[in-house]
Amino acid sequence: MGKTDRDFSNNEVCVRKENVTVLGLGQMGVALARAFARAGHRTTGWNRTAGKAGDLAGVVEAASVADAVTASDLVVVCVLDYSAVQEIFGAVDISGRTIVNLTNGTPRQARELDAAVTARGARYVDGGIMAIPPMIGRPEAMVLYSGSTQAYESYEHVLGLLGTGTFVGTDPGLAALYDLSLLSAMYGLHGGALNAFALAGSEKVPATDFLALLVPWLRAMLGALPRFAERIDSGDFGTGVSSKLSMQVQAFPNFFDASREQGVRDDLLRPIYELMKQRVADGHGDQDGASIVELLRTPSTVDRG
Amino acid sequence: MGKTDRDFSNNEVCVRKENVTVLGLGQMGVALARAFARAGHRTTGWNRTAGKAGDLAGVVEAASVADAVTASDLVVVCVLDYSAVQEIFGAVDISGRTIVNLTNGTPRQARELDAAVTARGARYVDGGIMAIPPMIGRPEAMVLYSGSTQAYESYEHVLGLLGTGTFVGTDPGLAALYDLSLLSAMYGLHGGALNAFALAGSEKVPATDFLALLVPWLRAMLGALPRFAERIDSGDFGTGVSSKLSMQVQAFPNFFDASREQGVRDDLLRPIYELMKQRVADGHGDQDGASIVELLRTPSTVDRG
Repeated sequence: MGKTDRDFSNNEVCVRKENVTVLGLGQMGVALARAFARAGHRTTGWNRTAGKAGDLAGVVEAASVADAVTASDLVVVCVLDYSAVQEIFGAVDISGRTIVNLTNGTPRQARELDAAVTARGARYVDGGIMAIPPMIGRPEAMVLYSGSTQAYESYEHVLGLLGTGTFVGTDPGLAALYDLSLLSAMYGLHGGALNAFALAGSEKVPATDFLALLVPWLRAMLGALPRFAERIDSGDFGTGVSSKLSMQVQAFPNFFDASREQGVRDDLLRPIYELMKQRVADGHGDQDGASIVELLRTPSTVDRG
Repeated sequence: MGKTDRDFSNNEVCVRKENVTVLGLGQMGVALARAFARAGHRTTGWNRTAGKAGDLAGVVEAASVADAVTASDLVVVCVLDYSAVQEIFGAVDISGRTIVNLTNGTPRQARELDAAVTARGARYVDGGIMAIPPMIGRPEAMVLYSGSTQAYESYEHVLGLLGTGTFVGTDPGLAALYDLSLLSAMYGLHGGALNAFALAGSEKVPATDFLALLVPWLRAMLGALPRFAERIDSGDFGTGVSSKLSMQVQAFPNFFDASREQGVRDDLLRPIYELMKQRVADGHGDQDGASIVELLRTPSTVDRG
């Protein structure tokens, strides 16, 4: 085990040894199986293309999905998409099993799979892994779960080996919803930061120098989020506003002009400007910037799907 | 002075009393003049529409720009835009003065004004205020400066009253460039967070509940920025990539599908997805997400100005 692979399961004592099956041995599935096996659980792996469990110490490869499902009460699935999950289970008897599906998907897909799985006599937990494979097994790997509370609690000691688990609700769609929500926030943050690096870099400012201003600035700007949240929950976007939408939109032309002058594309900031402008045009110029959520909630009339 | 208005200038002793003029007494100009006057500097204010300095203790209102400029060696300007600055100075003699222009603008406008001002025998410092008026006078108000180092250093003890000042370089355009870069990063962060609140809120998840996951998540995701910066400076986006662009783009269709299913607009995430897809299409699917800066640096062929 590498020095950076801190196996925090070592801190646990007297944990029941379980049989765990992992369906899907892609990069993520392998990381999951490894985390279970390392902690001493009897781990069975299966992959559509055989031989993937070959070099995984402690992981026994099953010849079929049926064998893999028979081997363990806890069946963790991590494949390409939800139709692959449906296909894999096919006519296999999953009754009495706990299916923990960590495949990426949408809330609706999770709910549909939950209905199909529970109709076949199994318990269903949906999960969203907020980490990349090398992070699995470390506390900084956040894994969101939703669905059957009972099933989750039965296997919390096993699932906890993957990272820091958070059960977000009994609606099986919630883990996927939270997962995608957090991802969208991350891409906003990273897109904004990359835009800033590109703009500063247009005058040969090294990104590593600019970082010294950017990181504390963004950390400070995180401080606005509790206020945003309160406004969203109360629906009051207009009381005690210190930075009005009508003032904020006035700063954007400088940004677009500067981007053009500096030879940097402005694509990433166009949509928020359009939303803010629309809010002002709709008569909400005195409101806080957070009020653009009112527009986000309204599906666009243009279908761009 | 209110309890929250911590006047950190009280910690300074034996500071030279200066004459300071503030041109432009809008919300921000008033906040600036107040900060100078409070610390005991002889403060002169001027505004196009007279009477704005009326209720500002310690601020003397000048009858004309010429009088206001005559009153102080240090002349701080904060008006609507750069053309207003040019207009205000008109034919007024500014020779020997230090002009600190805190008006919002672009790097090019700052450079042009610097040339005009220095040609008239004055020293020029451009500034970008990364704060709203109520924050002025507190250390968390960040103010960026660029231009004449000598001029900045002569008045650092006065300008420091406005907040935490940072001199970013002798190119007078740099303060505006940094200002707009940091703003773009903030709007990315806030747009992403608002998107996340809207998406989670589509299942009636209170924003104040979701906050408990969102803030630590975004704080953790700030951890990617030093790696982004190193890749941008080295130009190496391909070595040791743990989360490849080709993998990342695969997560977006779920996001778009879920947004549609949940009745939330996806406008804010479209542009970063388009940039990432283009990078993959250009053969850089194995690279780190930070490589989209290569595209941002290329002005779009479509003029949307």
